[in-house]
Amino acid sequence: MKVYVIGLGLIGGSLALDVKREFPEADIFGIDANAQHVEEATSLGIISKAAVIEDLIHADWVIVAVPVNYIAQLLPQILDNISEHTIVFDAGSTKAAICKAVENHPNRRNFIAMHPIAGTEFSGPSAAITGLFNGKTNIICEVEKTAFKLQEKALALFNAIGMRIRYMDPISHDTHIAYVSHLSHISSFMLGKTVIEKEKDERDIFDMAGSGFASTVRLAKSSPTTWASIFKENKTNVSQALQQYIANLQNFQQLLDNEDYNGMFDEMENTNRIKNILNGIS
Amino acid sequence: MKVYVIGLGLIGGSLALDVKREFPEADIFGIDANAQHVEEATSLGIISKAAVIEDLIHADWVIVAVPVNYIAQLLPQILDNISEHTIVFDAGSTKAAICKAVENHPNRRNFIAMHPIAGTEFSGPSAAITGLFNGKTNIICEVEKTAFKLQEKALALFNAIGMRIRYMDPISHDTHIAYVSHLSHISSFMLGKTVIEKEKDERDIFDMAGSGFASTVRLAKSSPTTWASIFKENKTNVSQALQQYIANLQNFQQLLDNEDYNGMFDEMENTNRIKNILNGIS
Repeated sequence: MKVYVIGLGLIGGSLALDVKREFPEADIFGIDANAQHVEEATSLGIISKAAVIEDLIHADWVIVAVPVNYIAQLLPQILDNISEHTIVFDAGSTKAAICKAVENHPNRRNFIAMHPIAGTEFSGPSAAITGLFNGKTNIICEVEKTAFKLQEKALALFNAIGMRIRYMDPISHDTHIAYVSHLSHISSFMLGKTVIEKEKDERDIFDMAGSGFASTVRLAKSSPTTWASIFKENKTNVSQALQQYIANLQNFQQLLDNEDYNGMFDEMENTNRIKNILNGIS
Repeated sequence: MKVYVIGLGLIGGSLALDVKREFPEADIFGIDANAQHVEEATSLGIISKAAVIEDLIHADWVIVAVPVNYIAQLLPQILDNISEHTIVFDAGSTKAAICKAVENHPNRRNFIAMHPIAGTEFSGPSAAITGLFNGKTNIICEVEKTAFKLQEKALALFNAIGMRIRYMDPISHDTHIAYVSHLSHISSFMLGKTVIEKEKDERDIFDMAGSGFASTVRLAKSSPTTWASIFKENKTNVSQALQQYIANLQNFQQLLDNEDYNGMFDEMENTNRIKNILNGIS
């Protein structure tokens, strides 16, 4: 069994490790525009050797885990190079542009569009970990466009590595993920920026920061490459979510400036039900 | 040794548990406007029995852990009721108004103004846990206004329960804490609100939320009573921090709407150094 992983970062690397655990006999090849990543992934034992796009004709599986804007660019070329029995799946955090890019490709049936909702704030091959996807949601888009036999094999793999499958159309996926994932990253990055700007000359101040700040700002450690690419691909939805977030913050500031403490209390109490909603998210 | 805990929530309860661990012979009494909290704290073994303000004349220690706006109101009355050797300390998240409220009190020397930077998103007596303060920063304000012998005893207790001491004036405390703590709570509450508003009819959508969202929105589970009180006491500083946060978000939205992806990349890359800053915050 030959597996080609394109993009050897946190997600591609972690998928490679899980595939290797499930199929110890698999040969895992790596493709990455960054030669250092290929070298690092090889020395970490994530892949056994480097490959090129033209090798994909030999692939049983192709995993595409480059930044999302490159997935849409690269995917037609990948589908041009595979064999009839190759299964290609991506792991991009946006889905509409990717699905659109291959909608009329003759090998569309070899492709599964997916988004595993898993990750950490770290990046690169050294961030790859075994078991990252265990218990996590995997959203599959336009499943009906994938050949049934390939679907079956792919689902068996996704189940084996512990993912819970959800089906969704790509437009809905991109709308909702802007709120439950992409917006959090902006809120966290800008929180980090605001505090750093204020406290730039006062290093001691960070002694005052507790676990609450650490938790809220955690995502500000994330990769700018990954996230600039996601915001590019999901611009309209992210801008709308951000607009609503800013409006809510402005409203809260109005309550504060007007000394309307009951109003602030109500805002916070109404939001406390996030407790119940979060039950089940680890 | 008699210890009186006023305010039997997460912080007061956790301090009581740590004091009991260090001084197993201590009698711990509880005072709380909420009779149910007194009953709960008694049945949980956090306090041995209920007390009233007039009992404070017998106190060796008085711990004040009610919502911050009540601390400033209550503290003069507490200092009216103590004996010469009583040590009173508070645990409020703001310090200027509290220090101001007792600046001319004849028993000012019996009081230590402090802010232990510790907590969880839970509240009430059942949220109290042993060891909450271990390794955490404790900010003491206007230490020079406390009698030296009482300081010495208090510091021995704070060290015994594992707190790292930092000294700061109350005005600086309130300015900086608005950024590194209070602002995170607003950013988190409003993130929760924005997502709940958008997704109110679509419960399945929260299946899409991952650990990143859970981390960023965690503080939105916090007590509205505690936090409305904090925002009230620190209104000017919090409003200023919030203003700067909103300005940074608006700037990011401008970059997004203008498709200035390099600009977004730079914003995120510059903020990545929060990684180094956070090292050491657990």
